[in-house]
Amino acid sequence: MSAPTTDELGSDEATATDAADRGVAETVLAQARAARIASRRLARLRTADKNAVLRAAADAVEAQTGSVLAANAEDIARAETDGTPGSLLDRLRLTGDRVRGIADGLRQVAGLPDPIGEVLQGRTLLNGLSLRQVRVPLGVVGIVYEARPNVTVDAFGIGFKSGNAVLLRGSSSAARSNAELVRILRDALAAHGVDPNAVALVPSHDRSSVTHLIQARGLVDVVIPRGGAGLIDAVVRNALVPTLETGTGNCHVYVHSAADLDMATDIVVNAKTRRPSVCNAAETVLVDRTIADLAVPALTSALQAHGVIIHGDEPAMVPATEADWAEEYLSLDIAMKVVDGLDAAVEHIERYGTGHTEAIVTGDLAAADEFTARVDAAAVMVNASTAFTDGEQFGFGAEIGISTQKLHARGPMGLPELTSTKWLAWGHGQVRPA
Amino acid sequence: MSAPTTDELGSDEATATDAADRGVAETVLAQARAARIASRRLARLRTADKNAVLRAAADAVEAQTGSVLAANAEDIARAETDGTPGSLLDRLRLTGDRVRGIADGLRQVAGLPDPIGEVLQGRTLLNGLSLRQVRVPLGVVGIVYEARPNVTVDAFGIGFKSGNAVLLRGSSSAARSNAELVRILRDALAAHGVDPNAVALVPSHDRSSVTHLIQARGLVDVVIPRGGAGLIDAVVRNALVPTLETGTGNCHVYVHSAADLDMATDIVVNAKTRRPSVCNAAETVLVDRTIADLAVPALTSALQAHGVIIHGDEPAMVPATEADWAEEYLSLDIAMKVVDGLDAAVEHIERYGTGHTEAIVTGDLAAADEFTARVDAAAVMVNASTAFTDGEQFGFGAEIGISTQKLHARGPMGLPELTSTKWLAWGHGQVRPA
Repeated sequence: MSAPTTDELGSDEATATDAADRGVAETVLAQARAARIASRRLARLRTADKNAVLRAAADAVEAQTGSVLAANAEDIARAETDGTPGSLLDRLRLTGDRVRGIADGLRQVAGLPDPIGEVLQGRTLLNGLSLRQVRVPLGVVGIVYEARPNVTVDAFGIGFKSGNAVLLRGSSSAARSNAELVRILRDALAAHGVDPNAVALVPSHDRSSVTHLIQARGLVDVVIPRGGAGLIDAVVRNALVPTLETGTGNCHVYVHSAADLDMATDIVVNAKTRRPSVCNAAETVLVDRTIADLAVPALTSALQAHGVIIHGDEPAMVPATEADWAEEYLSLDIAMKVVDGLDAAVEHIERYGTGHTEAIVTGDLAAADEFTARVDAAAVMVNASTAFTDGEQFGFGAEIGISTQKLHARGPMGLPELTSTKWLAWGHGQVRPA
Repeated sequence: MSAPTTDELGSDEATATDAADRGVAETVLAQARAARIASRRLARLRTADKNAVLRAAADAVEAQTGSVLAANAEDIARAETDGTPGSLLDRLRLTGDRVRGIADGLRQVAGLPDPIGEVLQGRTLLNGLSLRQVRVPLGVVGIVYEARPNVTVDAFGIGFKSGNAVLLRGSSSAARSNAELVRILRDALAAHGVDPNAVALVPSHDRSSVTHLIQARGLVDVVIPRGGAGLIDAVVRNALVPTLETGTGNCHVYVHSAADLDMATDIVVNAKTRRPSVCNAAETVLVDRTIADLAVPALTSALQAHGVIIHGDEPAMVPATEADWAEEYLSLDIAMKVVDGLDAAVEHIERYGTGHTEAIVTGDLAAADEFTARVDAAAVMVNASTAFTDGEQFGFGAEIGISTQKLHARGPMGLPELTSTKWLAWGHGQVRPA
């Protein structure tokens, strides 16, 4: 799940030209070159060796909880001095339990199937040439993310298991925590004879490091921005290496005329209130006009009982403006609109949706079929909460983000989504006729 | 197979600002919006209906061969006046046979399996939620290509069968031919009740139309540049929509110490001379030093007997410079280098290869294993010609290009490579626990 807020990375577009920037550029490019070299070895590591390294890294993180918490305390102290709001402080803060959770995440990845080497398809051509398409790592994966230090270790674990070197560009607010975690990971790699440049922390004190990372064509194979809409948009617009867009979610629940009203209420309340700050939370509920007389009061009172502020055109709602339909609140706010049937619901979603997760509540099979066929999103739910769009829920075991783009990967991304393929053709002298 | 040469599109980077450009921008964006609307219907067309339309379009193209050839004659006449070289004229020129071939291409696509609706994976979660990942179209696909008018119809056929609307930006030198072909296709669509905006020809008289097409974020889902390195690089660098890089190929054949010399000679000659202008042709042969005394003269005389000019460091070769190792000659030229074993061969390929197709000739299993594992390319061949990297050879039935990037698709791209996926979750009121 991607984090809700944008931090200082979001608006970075400048190409600085001074000496300090050249220093940052050199640092980032040197890290990328070293990662590239490390990635060649990583691609050929055996699964058993990768799993052993991941478990050793987990043990190392847990054993050094003290130094991690000390580094984190410095970040927290600085953030408090800077007047950082409480919700951001909470995302930044580590505890003994959270560090244990981070280590357990690595152990969980160690237990997942290795995607590398999987044969996806193959055949023998008429001339006897034997053809196989096999999974290989992407190579070097750049990740640009926000305050949460757990992403540092999660991204390493998923990247390493899938044979990739990772270049991490975290938030400057987590600089000390991230540095300490990456030091522990690199030490664990080196102790197991693995090139420690398989993971590196790109400088975060200078905003230009993002630009250098996302423009390192030929060195970095893909960049994944994880964070708010501003960060993602800035990365996608300025990147020269391919990007995997993750997760802004303006998710809708459409309560169809044939909906079970109790079911609809449960789903809307769950989709909004379970964890309002995540990308699969519902932001708008669309109510079919034919049942609006019953449904709007029922939904309104249930949502209000959970502390949700409703933005809409009905009495007792905060008056909605055009901006409300596009808003990803990520808070205990929801927009509510009465629509004239399924066509209008689909058109509203087409106009304002972000292609993340859309849901219909209905007992009518034809309506469910039409909604799922027409709505263009990474996930479309029938009679279920939007909260299910999640790598762990989908059974992936680990998730690097939720893609809202259509190329390469769409929806929750696990280990296979961090791979590419290679065609192997084995022959005995075959040449191609003219 | 992508075409060899770069035409006038390659260096387009300017963002023109005058009124003419605003007109082009409006035209392109209007075409993109119309394509987007058309794509929604296309995504839901039945396979049988798509196949019927493709066969009708094939018949229409063939029936109107006269008007196609007349339009093409205008393009040819203008190109001749402009002093266009013969090889380019040949790529531009249509004949009755070529038009029939173009129509047959559409019929062939009609006969291929429809990728849309395929269920790629699925499971039922513990809570009973039924999950499926299904193939869906990408939506709107932009294609920027060079002189050959057959690409116009091929791209429509592959795009249409995979449920996508296509925006075609061809070369201005083929403007009349492309316009006539697209008119015929659009008429055929309209005659079958399909929105003709499923295919449109973007203006080619103004170079800024490429920029508008590749920056139409939110309207165009992916852009595929097909052509020379300059065109591809310009598109990838300036695009704001995701791109699929196709095909520059600096392909190598490594003649290992344990190679059968006759086999190596046949493979090198085939890989170089079968069709020198295509991206899967070999451009460099690497000869292991341990067999160089025998292999270099044997390869040299066989290549020279086929009219190949050899660039290298040995006597009787054209002296090679650094540029030769990176060169994609696309002609009857080849670079030849003696290397100190497999490590040196792999390092040379790592440095100069473009990630397209690399081959080893060897009877040694360990060498073949190591070469295929270490070389990072879309296709790696053992004892076979590089010429086999081709969608038709691989059994795809149709090809939109050969991807040399690692995201989304790598190697020959057929119908499934023009699709995305969508997760469908059907439930009966499931909500996610906190």
